[in-house]
Amino acid sequence: MTPPNDTTLPDFQPSERTRIKRLHQRAVFDRKTVYEILDAGLMCHVGYAIDGQPYVTPTAYWRVDDRVYWHGSSASKMLRAVEKGIDVCFTVAHLDGLVLARSGFHSSINYRSVMALGVAEKVSDEAQKLAALEVFTERLTPGRWAELRPVNKQEIKATTVLSLKLEEVACKVRTGPPGDDEEDYSLDVWAGVVPIATMIGAPEDDPRLKAGIAQPAYLREVKIG
Amino acid sequence: MTPPNDTTLPDFQPSERTRIKRLHQRAVFDRKTVYEILDAGLMCHVGYAIDGQPYVTPTAYWRVDDRVYWHGSSASKMLRAVEKGIDVCFTVAHLDGLVLARSGFHSSINYRSVMALGVAEKVSDEAQKLAALEVFTERLTPGRWAELRPVNKQEIKATTVLSLKLEEVACKVRTGPPGDDEEDYSLDVWAGVVPIATMIGAPEDDPRLKAGIAQPAYLREVKIG
Repeated sequence: MTPPNDTTLPDFQPSERTRIKRLHQRAVFDRKTVYEILDAGLMCHVGYAIDGQPYVTPTAYWRVDDRVYWHGSSASKMLRAVEKGIDVCFTVAHLDGLVLARSGFHSSINYRSVMALGVAEKVSDEAQKLAALEVFTERLTPGRWAELRPVNKQEIKATTVLSLKLEEVACKVRTGPPGDDEEDYSLDVWAGVVPIATMIGAPEDDPRLKAGIAQPAYLREVKIG
Repeated sequence: MTPPNDTTLPDFQPSERTRIKRLHQRAVFDRKTVYEILDAGLMCHVGYAIDGQPYVTPTAYWRVDDRVYWHGSSASKMLRAVEKGIDVCFTVAHLDGLVLARSGFHSSINYRSVMALGVAEKVSDEAQKLAALEVFTERLTPGRWAELRPVNKQEIKATTVLSLKLEEVACKVRTGPPGDDEEDYSLDVWAGVVPIATMIGAPEDDPRLKAGIAQPAYLREVKIG
């Protein structure tokens, strides 16, 4: 159960709701880019409404084939609302840089974002749930799933896993230097990009770590963003 | 117009909608912490519904006193929907680390998040709009506002600025090492935290930068996260 880039599947098509009306040069609908953006991230923001009030919950996610997954406590307000089959908006955004133009108006940010609309489904089958959780663990720390104390029945029951099929998807990307008004290029103002990236720090041992346990090699390979 | 920590104002009180029911040890309602989390970030996620469909739009934001602000093109679908006075959910989340426990179940992430509910207001007064945009620029790059080519009438008109008063606010923070089941501490599994932080890279000059313009000192001071 590895997350391949199903580039055999067709690219996404804009719907009435995901068509990007402004700055459409930033719109991207190819499946490969969408998957790359999703696979680079760890935290999504799930939007849903309860009694007409929208909520946006940040949570960890992962992708398998043409689905994204997220999970949490079976008691979570978000998961209990969403598992009922309501409309959701799943958004992932990576911040890549400050774009400092010669005017405030053309200053911007570089980013990669994906938004998917739809109705999430609960993964009810126990084996499928476990398989999905395994992908989540293995994705950032390959090899760790086999090292962990196995999941027990009670924990599986206490964990809700939801998935959303990637069908109605919008993707926007901005890269590169500022685009200033032509007459502004002659101004004596610095312009350019200040890059922003996600940095993975040196792993910190649990204060209660058993003596003699070394840091596994996969900790040095964690990549996010 | 600097963003002070109005700690003279009372702390936030949980409402029926923002009371944190699970893992309530992670709930924080003191105003100082909420402001610190907001002031550390650049990108929020704004949730709103159009025809019952929730949307979550990532966008830049900033704080002044007890309000958060965000802005964009007056033609933006999000801003046009939200400026009508609909309910929104404003969420900011900073990812601080992977919490690798000895079981999948207790593995987690360290984070700081703020969620604010309410109805956003459009900043209509031109002077107030300019003042708000100045704070946004000065916040990450102090001194830059005065260097920029001034905003013109057409640009002010083309920019919508919204603000949300911080009233109904929930804040959750997780820090520190994993909390494993007592019997799992004896297992031969590495456990601990892999820190995640936002890194600001070396500024990249615009390829069309006018000769002789040095990188301003404030570029080295940019901090996010």
